[in-house]
Amino acid sequence: MAEKTFNITLLGAGTVGGGVATLLTRDRKLLRDRTGIDFRLLHVADLDAQRVRDLGLGNLPHTTDAIAAIDDPKTDLVVELIGGTGIAAKFVEHSLSCGKPVVTANKALLASRGPELFNLARKNNTCVAFEASCAGGIPVINAIIHGLVANRIEALIGIVNGTCNFILTQMTRHGLSYSQALAEAQKAGYAEADPTLDVSGRDAAQKLSLLASLAFNTRVAESDIQVQGINSLEEADLKFAGDLGYVIKLLAIAQREPKDRISLRVHPTLVHKDDLLAQVSGSFNAVSIYGHALGHALFYGRGAGRMPTASAVVSDIVQVGMGLTAAAFKQFNLLPAAAGAVKKLPAAELQSRYYLRLTAQDAPGVLAQVTKILGSHKISLSAVLQRESNHSQFVPVVITTHQAREGDLQKALDKINRLKSLRPPAVCLRIIDQPKEFAGGV
Amino acid sequence: MAEKTFNITLLGAGTVGGGVATLLTRDRKLLRDRTGIDFRLLHVADLDAQRVRDLGLGNLPHTTDAIAAIDDPKTDLVVELIGGTGIAAKFVEHSLSCGKPVVTANKALLASRGPELFNLARKNNTCVAFEASCAGGIPVINAIIHGLVANRIEALIGIVNGTCNFILTQMTRHGLSYSQALAEAQKAGYAEADPTLDVSGRDAAQKLSLLASLAFNTRVAESDIQVQGINSLEEADLKFAGDLGYVIKLLAIAQREPKDRISLRVHPTLVHKDDLLAQVSGSFNAVSIYGHALGHALFYGRGAGRMPTASAVVSDIVQVGMGLTAAAFKQFNLLPAAAGAVKKLPAAELQSRYYLRLTAQDAPGVLAQVTKILGSHKISLSAVLQRESNHSQFVPVVITTHQAREGDLQKALDKINRLKSLRPPAVCLRIIDQPKEFAGGV
Repeated sequence: MAEKTFNITLLGAGTVGGGVATLLTRDRKLLRDRTGIDFRLLHVADLDAQRVRDLGLGNLPHTTDAIAAIDDPKTDLVVELIGGTGIAAKFVEHSLSCGKPVVTANKALLASRGPELFNLARKNNTCVAFEASCAGGIPVINAIIHGLVANRIEALIGIVNGTCNFILTQMTRHGLSYSQALAEAQKAGYAEADPTLDVSGRDAAQKLSLLASLAFNTRVAESDIQVQGINSLEEADLKFAGDLGYVIKLLAIAQREPKDRISLRVHPTLVHKDDLLAQVSGSFNAVSIYGHALGHALFYGRGAGRMPTASAVVSDIVQVGMGLTAAAFKQFNLLPAAAGAVKKLPAAELQSRYYLRLTAQDAPGVLAQVTKILGSHKISLSAVLQRESNHSQFVPVVITTHQAREGDLQKALDKINRLKSLRPPAVCLRIIDQPKEFAGGV
Repeated sequence: MAEKTFNITLLGAGTVGGGVATLLTRDRKLLRDRTGIDFRLLHVADLDAQRVRDLGLGNLPHTTDAIAAIDDPKTDLVVELIGGTGIAAKFVEHSLSCGKPVVTANKALLASRGPELFNLARKNNTCVAFEASCAGGIPVINAIIHGLVANRIEALIGIVNGTCNFILTQMTRHGLSYSQALAEAQKAGYAEADPTLDVSGRDAAQKLSLLASLAFNTRVAESDIQVQGINSLEEADLKFAGDLGYVIKLLAIAQREPKDRISLRVHPTLVHKDDLLAQVSGSFNAVSIYGHALGHALFYGRGAGRMPTASAVVSDIVQVGMGLTAAAFKQFNLLPAAAGAVKKLPAAELQSRYYLRLTAQDAPGVLAQVTKILGSHKISLSAVLQRESNHSQFVPVVITTHQAREGDLQKALDKINRLKSLRPPAVCLRIIDQPKEFAGGV
C-alpha cells in the first residue's frame, strides 16, 4: 500500500502528552502496519525542555513556540494535552481557525465551550476528536456516536471519576474515613494535592455534560447538573449501606424523564451490590447505557492514567489521519450550535429511592414520629435498620424508602430535622435502581 | 443540510431481519436527524411473504427475488440476515462482485470464508461490515478496530454465547442439572430445538476466530481453536466451584504467549467470583480485552436477541451510508488474505490452573497417591476439598492446582485414572486468573 505520512504537533508533554509521545515513538511501526500511514511526531511543544528530555524517547523535535508549531504548513493535526481553559483554549482556537483538526482530552474546555469550538471547526471545514476527554481509555464516546447510533438512549449512568472511586473503594473495603482514604489516594498518585475538582463532583459533572449532550442530542451545560461530591461522606454510611446490601458510588446520571425532560445529576449513590457498577473498584471507570434497541450495555476500563488515556488519544489521532473523524464530525453535526439547551427535570420532581440516617434519642416513639412525617408526604418505607443501643443516649436509625418525589422528601426532611428527639441534620442519600430495559417498548 | 437517500436491500426477514426492518421503519426520522441521510428500505427479500406481513410495519417492499433486488441499480447496500453458509454465501458473493457493500451478522460464514470474502470486497472496491456477528449488540468489533487501534492486545476473554451463559446461570443459581437448565433455556427462547451449535462451544469458537483474527492481526480458523462445550458439565462441579469461590462460565480465550504464539480455546472455566466476567448473568455477553496501553477493558451487553442485534446491524448500515466503513475497510486491510495462519500454542504447552474432581474410595492413602502423581509431574496443589463421608463407599475429592503445563497435567491424569482406589474418569476443568495488566511493560 502506498504510504502516507501524517504529521502531528503535540502540545504538552505532561502525563498524558508523555504517554502519547511514547506510543507514537515506540509503536510507530505497529500503527504503520495497521493503517498504512506513518504517524510522525513533527513538533512537541512544551515550555519545559527538561520534561521532554525526561521522557527518554531520544531526540524529540522539541519547541517552546506552540503557535509556530501549529502554523508549520507541515502540521496535519494538533494534539492539545495542556488542559484547562486558559492557554489551551487559545491554541485550540488558533488551530481550528487555521483549518487544522484538533485531538484533545480537555473536558473542562469542552464542557465550557464545546458547542462554540465545534462550530468553529465546522466553519473551517475541520474537526475535533475528544475520546480521551471522558472515561480515559474507554472508547465510550465512539460507542455513543457510532455503536449506539440506532438507539434512543434512555439512561446513561457512569462512574467517571477514578479519584472518587478509589477513595470510596478504600473506605468500603478497609473502613477508612474520608480523609484517611483521600490521603491514601494522594499517596498512590490518584488524587491531586488539591483534590477539590475531583471530590466535589465537578470533574464528573464536566464529563457528564459532554456525554449527555452526545447521548441525548442536546446541549447540557455543567450548570444544568445537580452536583454533590463525596467530601462530606461518613464511613458510617458506607457501613450501613453495606449492611443493607448496597455499595456507595459517585454516579453521574442522565436519564430521560416524562415530557422529554432529562434528569441530570452527580451524587454519591447507593448501588445494589449485584449491579455491575457496584463491582467497579479502585480507579476504574464504567459507563452503563440503556438504549431503546440495545437494552443495557456497559463499558468498563481505566478512566485515567498516562498510558490508558494515551491509548484513547492515539485512537483519535489514527481516525483523524484516516479521514474518518472529519467525515463523521461533519455528518453527525456533533454538539450543534443550534441545539437548544436541555429541558432538565426540576430537582424537586425527581423520583428516587432514598437512604436516611437519623441520629435519634434512644427513647420510645421516635421512629413513630419520623414515619408519620414521611407518610404525610406520601413516602413509604422499604427497610429500617436500628441496632440495639450500646447505652449511648443517641443511636443511629437507618431508613430506606420506596420511590418518592424529591420535593416531598425534602419537605419531610425539613420537618424531621426539627424534631426534638433527633440530632440534626439527617443524612440523606439517593438509591438507584437499574432502569428498566427496553422502556421504549420496541 | 442537503439530504441524501441511501437505499437498502434487506435479505431475510427473520428474527434479526425483522428487528432491522422495525428500526429502519419506526426510527427513520431519528436516523435522518442524526446523520442527514434518509435510510430507506428499498427491498425486503424473503421467500415467506407472510413473515414480512407479520412484522406489522405496513406495506414493506417485499420480494422473493433476492438477486434481482441486489441487482437493482438503486440498491446502495445489501444487508444479509439469512445466516448459514449456503444461499447466504451466494448472495454475499454476488453483492460484493457487483461492488455493493454488505452488512452481515453471519459469523458462520465469516469464520469459514472471511478472508476470501473480504478480499473479494477489496477487489471490487467495496466493503463488509459485521459488528453484529460477534456479541450481538455490543460494539466490540468497532472497539477492537478503532478504539484499541493503539494497543498490542495481550488477551481477549469473552462470554460470547448467550445460550450457554443462560444455561450455566440457571444451573448455578437454581441448582438445576444441565438437561433441566437446557429445557428452561428452550422454554425461554434462548436455545434452539437442536442446541448443538451453541452448547458444543462451536458458535463461540466461530466468534472467537473472528475476534482473535482482528485483535491479533492474524488469521484464526475455527479449527485452530481447542473447543469443549458445556453439555457434559455436572451440577456437582458448579456447586464445588461455588464453594471454592468460583463461578463456571463458558469462556472464549485468545492470549498472547511466549514466542509470538497465541493460545486459542473455548471451554467451561472456573472464574473467580470477584472477576467482572463472573457477574455476567443470563443471556448477556461480555468481552474482556487487555491492551498494552489501555490495560483491562470490558464491553458488556446483550449478545443476542432481535432488537439488540438489530441495533448493531443498523449501526453498521449508518456507517456504510456515511462512507466511514469503506474508508476504514480499505485502510485497515481487515483479515488480509496475505496474513499467515496464526502461530497457535500447542495444547500441551498451555500454562493454566486446574480444577480436578476425583471420585475416591473412602479409604486412607488415596489422597497421598494422587498428590504423589501430581508432584511427580511438577504440579502443586493450591486447595483440597473433601467433605466428611456420608457412609457411602465413594466420596468426591476436589483439588485445585497452581499453574501447571497442560501436557504434564494430562499425563498425570492418565495415571490418576488408572488408580484402583478411584472411579474414573476424573473431572478436569481449567481455572482462569485475570491476565496481568500492562504485561507489555509500557
